[in-house]
Amino acid sequence: MTVENKETDTMAPVTEDRIRQSFAAQSLMATFGATLARVEEGVVEIEAPILPGSRQQHGFAHAGLTFAIGDSAAGYAALSVLPEGYEVLTTEMKVNLLATGQGDLLVARGKVIKPGRRLVIVQADVFALTDGKETHIALLTGTMMPVAPK
Amino acid sequence: MTVENKETDTMAPVTEDRIRQSFAAQSLMATFGATLARVEEGVVEIEAPILPGSRQQHGFAHAGLTFAIGDSAAGYAALSVLPEGYEVLTTEMKVNLLATGQGDLLVARGKVIKPGRRLVIVQADVFALTDGKETHIALLTGTMMPVAPK
Amino acid sequence: MTVENKETDTMAPVTEDRIRQSFAAQSLMATFGATLARVEEGVVEIEAPILPGSRQQHGFAHAGLTFAIGDSAAGYAALSVLPEGYEVLTTEMKVNLLATGQGDLLVARGKVIKPGRRLVIVQADVFALTDGKETHIALLTGTMMPVAPK
Amino acid sequence: MTVENKETDTMAPVTEDRIRQSFAAQSLMATFGATLARVEEGVVEIEAPILPGSRQQHGFAHAGLTFAIGDSAAGYAALSVLPEGYEVLTTEMKVNLLATGQGDLLVARGKVIKPGRRLVIVQADVFALTDGKETHIALLTGTMMPVAPK
Repeated sequence: MTVENKETDTMAPVTEDRIRQSFAAQSLMATFGATLARVEEGVVEIEAPILPGSRQQHGFAHAGLTFAIGDSAAGYAALSVLPEGYEVLTTEMKVNLLATGQGDLLVARGKVIKPGRRLVIVQADVFALTDGKETHIALLTGTMMPVAPK
Repeated sequence: MTVENKETDTMAPVTEDRIRQSFAAQSLMATFGATLARVEEGVVEIEAPILPGSRQQHGFAHAGLTFAIGDSAAGYAALSVLPEGYEVLTTEMKVNLLATGQGDLLVARGKVIKPGRRLVIVQADVFALTDGKETHIALLTGTMMPVAPK
Repeated sequence: MTVENKETDTMAPVTEDRIRQSFAAQSLMATFGATLARVEEGVVEIEAPILPGSRQQHGFAHAGLTFAIGDSAAGYAALSVLPEGYEVLTTEMKVNLLATGQGDLLVARGKVIKPGRRLVIVQADVFALTDGKETHIALLTGTMMPVAPK
Repeated sequence: MTVENKETDTMAPVTEDRIRQSFAAQSLMATFGATLARVEEGVVEIEAPILPGSRQQHGFAHAGLTFAIGDSAAGYAALSVLPEGYEVLTTEMKVNLLATGQGDLLVARGKVIKPGRRLVIVQADVFALTDGKETHIALLTGTMMPVAPK
């Protein structure tokens, strides 16, 4: 992967701050008890517990939770390779569900497959953690559209 | 579309009851304030307000909300064409986001594209309602896997 | 659907000519024996026989054929709602295969779900015809990126 | 990844033979001049030149070619982790196109993300080679349905 819009080391902390501010403004992430566990250029991780209010009919993580943290992790991974002032919008996202979401915690790892100013192609893997053991429960692939500053 | 497992009119209320019970057991739907607005053979509608806790960073509906009600509407549409005792699991779902989710209410309309005992192919359209006017905000297509009673 | 870039009736033939020229330049369509059966604003149909050289290991239409004509029908449907001089590129396309591709002829019907200058969301349905009877064999949903004239 | 249906070393050649026989029976692969470059448990590579008859309107590889070899590589990767006698059918496949398909040769690398007797989740990456340099032109993710021997 070639990161087109590589930023200097001194700008990196600014980017992380901006991502953390945007994440904090997403009320759904607070509803899910989700936190930003890792922010690097091109890679972002979001963790979320399987709260009593985030479940499907059998008591496991609802696919809506899995999708939401995977989509957000992928979106912020895309944002992390864009210049200051940009935002991103998800235009499409596909999730393949690999296993039921059960365990202590879900972790979504978003990464950039192909950067670009018009479109950023992204992927996210979601894992369920039980006693420190990871199970791969979902694979997401999608497209983010950068929105330039006005 | 040929509905393989067509049920008689007298069985229809049973199916709707079963779907309503399953929906009621999905805690995420309660968290989102979502309700089952329509249950017919092959077509299910779910409505949800854009609650203060369901939003993305600009205050619009989070894609996780849009996905969750679209996925559930599609899943219950699949369940509505299966025999009593079956359940369904989402194996994959893709969402194309068409417009920002803003308005008074979101409505997800799930339908069956192709029924089957091994896989059910489904679609859902999600609309945002503002002053009674509908905006098409998302198109979902996916695959549900029927799980036979034990 | 609101077609943003509605063109006047007098321009419509120009658009169809341009689409037919582009189609004629796609050598893969000639390899497949495919023809443009219908070109209207927002809707394009492509027909193709299941040639001896277009098959999978059981002698049915290869998914590559189904995909190719579905993708092209969707792409030209997108082009048909864009102003003169534009081109389109597929950025992503998902196909759900509903039935084996067997019969006398395949027909792909592409349509525009959501027009736009940055992205056009499209859908295509592919049918197999046997003795005049249609079987729905594939559903494609995808995203086309308009490329403005230089 | 845990390969559920691990076969013994002595069976491995049989599996590769079976895959090579199936590939040889796909007439579309011959039309495309495609060859099976690598067959291992869970990983299959297919190579194809960009023949004069495999192109889109600008002379580059048609997305139908990219899709066809990616889908087949992913399908045979799935088959390689199934017991003797099984076949696989693609139920859905999404392709994200990352760059135009231009160069001397396309290479599709299919792999298994999640094996299973009911469904096998797969991925394929397609690269274009020019003077030995690889460009990542497509990412495919999809679902294969195993068909048990009768």
